[in-house]
Amino acid sequence: YISEGGDFCSEREWVTLNVGGKLFTTTRMTLTAKEPFSMLSRMFTIDSGQFNLSPSSVDSSGAYLIDRSPTYFEPILNYLRHGKLILDAGVNVQGVLEEAQFFGIESLVPQLESLADDEKLKKKQQPLT
Amino acid sequence: YISEGGDFCSEREWVTLNVGGKLFTTTRMTLTAKEPFSMLSRMFTIDSGQFNLSPSSVDSSGAYLIDRSPTYFEPILNYLRHGKLILDAGVNVQGVLEEAQFFGIESLVPQLESLADDEKLKKKQQPLT
Amino acid sequence: YISEGGDFCSEREWVTLNVGGKLFTTTRMTLTAKEPFSMLSRMFTIDSGQFNLSPSSVDSSGAYLIDRSPTYFEPILNYLRHGKLILDAGVNVQGVLEEAQFFGIESLVPQLESLADDEKLKKKQQPLT
Amino acid sequence: YISEGGDFCSEREWVTLNVGGKLFTTTRMTLTAKEPFSMLSRMFTIDSGQFNLSPSSVDSSGAYLIDRSPTYFEPILNYLRHGKLILDAGVNVQGVLEEAQFFGIESLVPQLESLADDEKLKKKQQPLT
Amino acid sequence: YISEGGDFCSEREWVTLNVGGKLFTTTRMTLTAKEPFSMLSRMFTIDSGQFNLSPSSVDSSGAYLIDRSPTYFEPILNYLRHGKLILDAGVNVQGVLEEAQFFGIESLVPQLESLADDEKLKKKQQPLT
Repeated sequence: YISEGGDFCSEREWVTLNVGGKLFTTTRMTLTAKEPFSMLSRMFTIDSGQFNLSPSSVDSSGAYLIDRSPTYFEPILNYLRHGKLILDAGVNVQGVLEEAQFFGIESLVPQLESLADDEKLKKKQQPLT
Repeated sequence: YISEGGDFCSEREWVTLNVGGKLFTTTRMTLTAKEPFSMLSRMFTIDSGQFNLSPSSVDSSGAYLIDRSPTYFEPILNYLRHGKLILDAGVNVQGVLEEAQFFGIESLVPQLESLADDEKLKKKQQPLT
Repeated sequence: YISEGGDFCSEREWVTLNVGGKLFTTTRMTLTAKEPFSMLSRMFTIDSGQFNLSPSSVDSSGAYLIDRSPTYFEPILNYLRHGKLILDAGVNVQGVLEEAQFFGIESLVPQLESLADDEKLKKKQQPLT
Repeated sequence: YISEGGDFCSEREWVTLNVGGKLFTTTRMTLTAKEPFSMLSRMFTIDSGQFNLSPSSVDSSGAYLIDRSPTYFEPILNYLRHGKLILDAGVNVQGVLEEAQFFGIESLVPQLESLADDEKLKKKQQPLT
Repeated sequence: YISEGGDFCSEREWVTLNVGGKLFTTTRMTLTAKEPFSMLSRMFTIDSGQFNLSPSSVDSSGAYLIDRSPTYFEPILNYLRHGKLILDAGVNVQGVLEEAQFFGIESLVPQLESLADDEKLKKKQQPLT
């Protein structure tokens, strides 16, 4: 198996986000390519255009400050990296849904809503008078 | 989906809390807007007023020192960010309740008490002679 | 709800512990008030007296070095903060008991021993020939 | 039991990876020896050759930047260290599979695919109308 | 309860290990006393002797570099501290066994092998098919 290293080694612009106090390192491309009209993407799009938002403040290490939960942001960033939603057991789906909606990652919302509904159903079925 | 970026990118004052040794980065607005009369809010309210508390000491990195559990503070901060209580599986509800009461986040207390009662009930129902 | 901020904002002496490589920030009062005769308390009591122990070495950041498990120390520190024992699911009770005994937090020991016994009983009852 | 310390103490070249914001310290040998033709190996192979990729950028601490999930990279690095796949309960197999495929660790893929299939089967069998 | 503080406060030599990127702080005595002939002990024994290994390289903070899993090393270090094997729920026993064998902590191996066998048995008994 030899995967193409193209997108791995080429020149890229790295950015670090400080999400609620935890640092995430990624590339501008990851943040903008998959959902170009999301709020997250518009924050990190350089080309001048009417949809762009001005970026957030940076902390003393140069990381962009975002006032949200790091725990629930993590699966969203992974989704932007490779296009799959992957949640560990024990992670509250509702928490990830909340962040997907906040950042405007629209393509994730239906899948998360459906998972959240399943979870509610399961809880109800547990034997508790 | 285009969410309004207003509250995301506008000028804000960022603060970092050192809760029991773990750093949380957030904004003064998050800490004060939802429950203006809570102890937490009064610590971080700037306007002069009779209800305000003087803020805590800061550590060498400038973070406000708070002598409490970081684990159980995290869902409370998320609640102040977006108004929903979201707990991962395995997190002890009683621990979060304890912090909500300490910080005076009154609107969270009934919901947490009800969840804590459910948990106690479940434990009793497990087969253990 | 307006909790008294007295013990929150008053002048306090903050100390940082390096427990097995993880930093915990708390106050001298938390470490000494609840169990004045415990080893932990005696290490951090300033008043001259026959029971006091000389404090441990400090690391390069000034944190007191303690060669024990950070994972199991955490619920003990929370107990010293607010007087309740709160354990997340998945945390091994035996590990916390071990630390309570080491630090001499006597009032926690019976409760932890009883929980540890319950856990052993449950394991036995699981169907495993 | 006296294990040979040869590969433990000999001169080695240490490298640090910054995977999505988390640092992993390991040796060049661990990254290259087990799967010499994987993308990961080719990034860290020094000998000049046609298969080599140029390495990634480094962050300010000198760690190689990799825009992937740290959580799911961890068991893959352990596999490269000692040749066994070891997953904690609660870790999503699909997430590790995704990374194994990205980094080109071919020998891990069939085992992970089989585990992922088992997991899907189990989920289906849970009673959820 | 007054535990003897002797081994807590006496002069000790503190060492920090960088295990796969995570720092663990402990003492030379903890690493060497319990299993004097293990590889780990021989690395940190100062007395000149034929069994000693030369220590590993150090990172920029002076921590000894060890190219192994931090997750599974943690319970082994705790064992060396107080002589008990304590595993959290969800930790893979096989992972700890792997490290015990690598570091040559012989007295832990039989206990871990027995636990690993129990775990395999349980998995088989789960209803799948």
